[in-house]
Amino acid sequence: MSLDRAGSLNGGGALRPDWIALDWGSSNLRAYAIGDGQILAEASGPGAAELGDAAAFEAALLAVVGPWLGDAPMPMLACGMVGSRQGWVEAPYLSVPAAPLDNAAMVPVPARDPRIALQILPGMRQDRPADVMRGEETQIAGLLALRPDFDGVVCLPGTHSKWARISAGEVVGFQTAMTGELFHLLSTASVLRHGMGDGWDQTAFDDGVAEGRRDADRLLTRLFTLRAEGLMDQLSADAASARLSGLLIGAELTATRGWWLGQDVALIGTDTLTQRYAAALAQQGIEAQQYDGGNMALAGLARARTQKGGT
Amino acid sequence: MSLDRAGSLNGGGALRPDWIALDWGSSNLRAYAIGDGQILAEASGPGAAELGDAAAFEAALLAVVGPWLGDAPMPMLACGMVGSRQGWVEAPYLSVPAAPLDNAAMVPVPARDPRIALQILPGMRQDRPADVMRGEETQIAGLLALRPDFDGVVCLPGTHSKWARISAGEVVGFQTAMTGELFHLLSTASVLRHGMGDGWDQTAFDDGVAEGRRDADRLLTRLFTLRAEGLMDQLSADAASARLSGLLIGAELTATRGWWLGQDVALIGTDTLTQRYAAALAQQGIEAQQYDGGNMALAGLARARTQKGGT
Repeated sequence: MSLDRAGSLNGGGALRPDWIALDWGSSNLRAYAIGDGQILAEASGPGAAELGDAAAFEAALLAVVGPWLGDAPMPMLACGMVGSRQGWVEAPYLSVPAAPLDNAAMVPVPARDPRIALQILPGMRQDRPADVMRGEETQIAGLLALRPDFDGVVCLPGTHSKWARISAGEVVGFQTAMTGELFHLLSTASVLRHGMGDGWDQTAFDDGVAEGRRDADRLLTRLFTLRAEGLMDQLSADAASARLSGLLIGAELTATRGWWLGQDVALIGTDTLTQRYAAALAQQGIEAQQYDGGNMALAGLARARTQKGGT
Repeated sequence: MSLDRAGSLNGGGALRPDWIALDWGSSNLRAYAIGDGQILAEASGPGAAELGDAAAFEAALLAVVGPWLGDAPMPMLACGMVGSRQGWVEAPYLSVPAAPLDNAAMVPVPARDPRIALQILPGMRQDRPADVMRGEETQIAGLLALRPDFDGVVCLPGTHSKWARISAGEVVGFQTAMTGELFHLLSTASVLRHGMGDGWDQTAFDDGVAEGRRDADRLLTRLFTLRAEGLMDQLSADAASARLSGLLIGAELTATRGWWLGQDVALIGTDTLTQRYAAALAQQGIEAQQYDGGNMALAGLARARTQKGGT
């Protein structure tokens, strides 16, 4: 199921992709031209949050994949926020418990350009407690393509971290934490921004994780301590940003402890984030395995394509 | 100690104030011309966060109080973020435990205009846990001017809520929660902004307080539930913003429960905020008394002026 990159990615000559995979999240579009089970070319474009109406989405897509198109309609599959209420076309949600892919629930996009034969994969929803995901279900499908017998918990850190319980190929339930978005807002737009550094301090991060685990119920007061210690020259800027990251991740681990305690945990995301979460989980005695988010999305899209057959 | 407003505030003719009180916070400057123990005139201007260098502060001040100046130097006292590191001149901090006013620690501002005889009141600091305040100490001094025998806890909700333990006229210790700033960032800049209303829903607020009290250690995951319930049409926009407010205030009450449990609590702030906190505290069986933040700042500045004598 995993796709290999062709010997040399083709930048110029006429590509003959069988289909195009689109990993289209809030902040980024990653497009892959796939032929003979190989990645022939890759390109990237604007995220769904940067685009407005349908015309803007279509123009952005054509700017990225236009060079890969011939005269015939090109099959494309997309996952992620492109299918949200603020996206191109709203795709439905699969209700858990359910397998993370269901081709019958894909939504065709009514593009003006006849060469675009695009379908958007559904997200997933949970009624109680209310929760939703878009894109992560495809990454989970990618993991299951790689490890069909996986039984445990998948953590997908990001703007909104997702924790999903997987059993017998289905997503049994999931939960979202706003950790990444809070880190971004606090470190760039709150009073804490005055004391944030660009470097990394692993000890400060580890201390922050322990503090967040212990004092999750006092997060609102612990946050300001970072500012006060900075003003009193007790905390360097690099240590402050690493401790903020650790504090929030530690608080997330307390909020989700019922999810990971005693479980087999797989982390899917960027290297930077999965490494931080792996370190935080290791502090709790959990050895998590790490998977690249982009690769898992692509593997999930490829699985959807296979399930669908060669339309 | 409390100041009365003169029968009719003087807008035009020649004022003869004895001194000028400046309540100069991050987002707002409130200036009061005081004469014969009465408020002769009031005006407002830009907050410290909007101003850059010393010249900008001086120009902003003159634009507001210029009409009240004669030829002689005019005594002025200021409290708040004007004395922060990002303010006009950095004023020192009084270390707790200490009385909230100490005229010996005031800092004279080297203004270019000789009519400005301005001094900035010190803030307060606490070494462990590290914490700082600027402006709130003057409001506490105003409360103590009104209730010299107050023994209990003062809560000053705002961008950064302060909880201060008061005994024998001194601030014994204090703690800051970033509740107001988080509410602002989450409701205007996070994914939750898509589902926020302008109205008010008291039941949703009360539910949020109870949820925040109970699930403070799961705040990161409870926050996203607001978004998911909105997407599933289970939650109106007005209910979502009121519940977010309640959730954060409830979590703050859990983070600070050692401060208010079994205490005499005084709330100082805007009407809107003190009413919300009073309702949240009432849910915990605490009957808090409410005081207007602007009036308390002015009373504190007046107390500082009296202690100082007629310089």
